Amino acid sequence: MDPNAKKTALRMIPYGLYVLTAESGAETAAATVNWVTQTSFAPPLVAVGVKADSHAHAIIKKAGAFALNVLGKGQDAMAFTFFKTAEREGSTISGQPYRAGSTGAPILANTPAFVECRLVATVEKGDHSLFVGEVVDAGVSKEPQGRADDATLWLKDLGEKVFYGG
Amino acid sequence: MDPNAKKTALRMIPYGLYVLTAESGAETAAATVNWVTQTSFAPPLVAVGVKADSHAHAIIKKAGAFALNVLGKGQDAMAFTFFKTAEREGSTISGQPYRAGSTGAPILANTPAFVECRLVATVEKGDHSLFVGEVVDAGVSKEPQGRADDATLWLKDLGEKVFYGG
Repeated sequence: MDPNAKKTALRMIPYGLYVLTAESGAETAAATVNWVTQTSFAPPLVAVGVKADSHAHAIIKKAGAFALNVLGKGQDAMAFTFFKTAEREGSTISGQPYRAGSTGAPILANTPAFVECRLVATVEKGDHSLFVGEVVDAGVSKEPQGRADDATLWLKDLGEKVFYGG
Repeated sequence: MDPNAKKTALRMIPYGLYVLTAESGAETAAATVNWVTQTSFAPPLVAVGVKADSHAHAIIKKAGAFALNVLGKGQDAMAFTFFKTAEREGSTISGQPYRAGSTGAPILANTPAFVECRLVATVEKGDHSLFVGEVVDAGVSKEPQGRADDATLWLKDLGEKVFYGG
C-alpha cells in the first residue's frame, strides 16, 4: 500500500468538530474531536473515535456515557481550547460554562447543539477506540438557518493545512 | 427527548459521499453511503454505517471486505446512480467500469480515490450496522488541489434539502 495514497484518500473524508465530554465522579473530560458519524436511525446511534490513551477514553469507559457538543461556525477558538487538557473549575470546563446532562455528561452552554449518549458498544482495535452511543437526549440552543451541517464548524474551517493527525 | 432537536443535532454532522462496494462469488454490491469516519491511524481503520437489510450488508458479511470509492466534486450523477440497486454487466457496475481490488472488492475506475478494507469488527445494534475495516490498500487517481476534503463530493452538494433519512 502506498502510504501517501492512504493518507490522501483518508484526508478526503470531511469532518465537523465536536467537544466530546464525559464525567465520572470527580473526573471530567472534554476534548475536541472530529471522527464522528451517525450509525443508525432506530435506535439513534452515533460513533466516535477516541484516542486510546487519552483521559476522555478512560472517563467514557468508567461513565458509560458521553456527550457530543456540536461546535458552530465561528467557534474556532473553542475548538482550539479543547485541543488542550481540560480543567474544571466550579461549573466551567476550561472557562466554558456547562451543566450535567441526564447521563451526567457535561453539556456546554455555548455550543449550538448537543447529543448525549449512553455507551452501547466499544471497538478497541487500534490507537483509537470506537465508542458507539445511543442518543438518549439532544438539544439545539441555536436553530440553524439553512442546512444544519452548514451551521457546524468544519475541520476545514480551522485552516488550509489543519488535519487530524498532522 | 425532543425528536426535532435530535433530528437537527444529528443533521449538523457533515458528511462526504462514497460508493461502498463489495463482492462475494457472483454477487456484487455497490451503494452510495455517507456515514463514514476514520477511527484509527495505526492500524488505519475506517467505519461505515450500512443498512442492516441491504444487499451491501449481506455481501460485506460474506466477503469480509469492502471498498469505499470516494466521490469527487461534480460526481452528483454517480452518487444518484448508486442510490439505486446496482447491476453488474461484464466489467461494469451500473455502467461504471471497475476492477477487482486486492481483497476482491470492486474499485471504480472513475472516482478520484479509494480505500479498500478487510472487515475487522461489526457492531449490529440498530437499523444500520457499523462495519469497521482495516485499510489494506488505497489509491488516488486524481490528486486533490488544495485541501483533500474539498475535492470530495459532500452530501450538502446534492441539494439544499438532501439529507440521509429524508
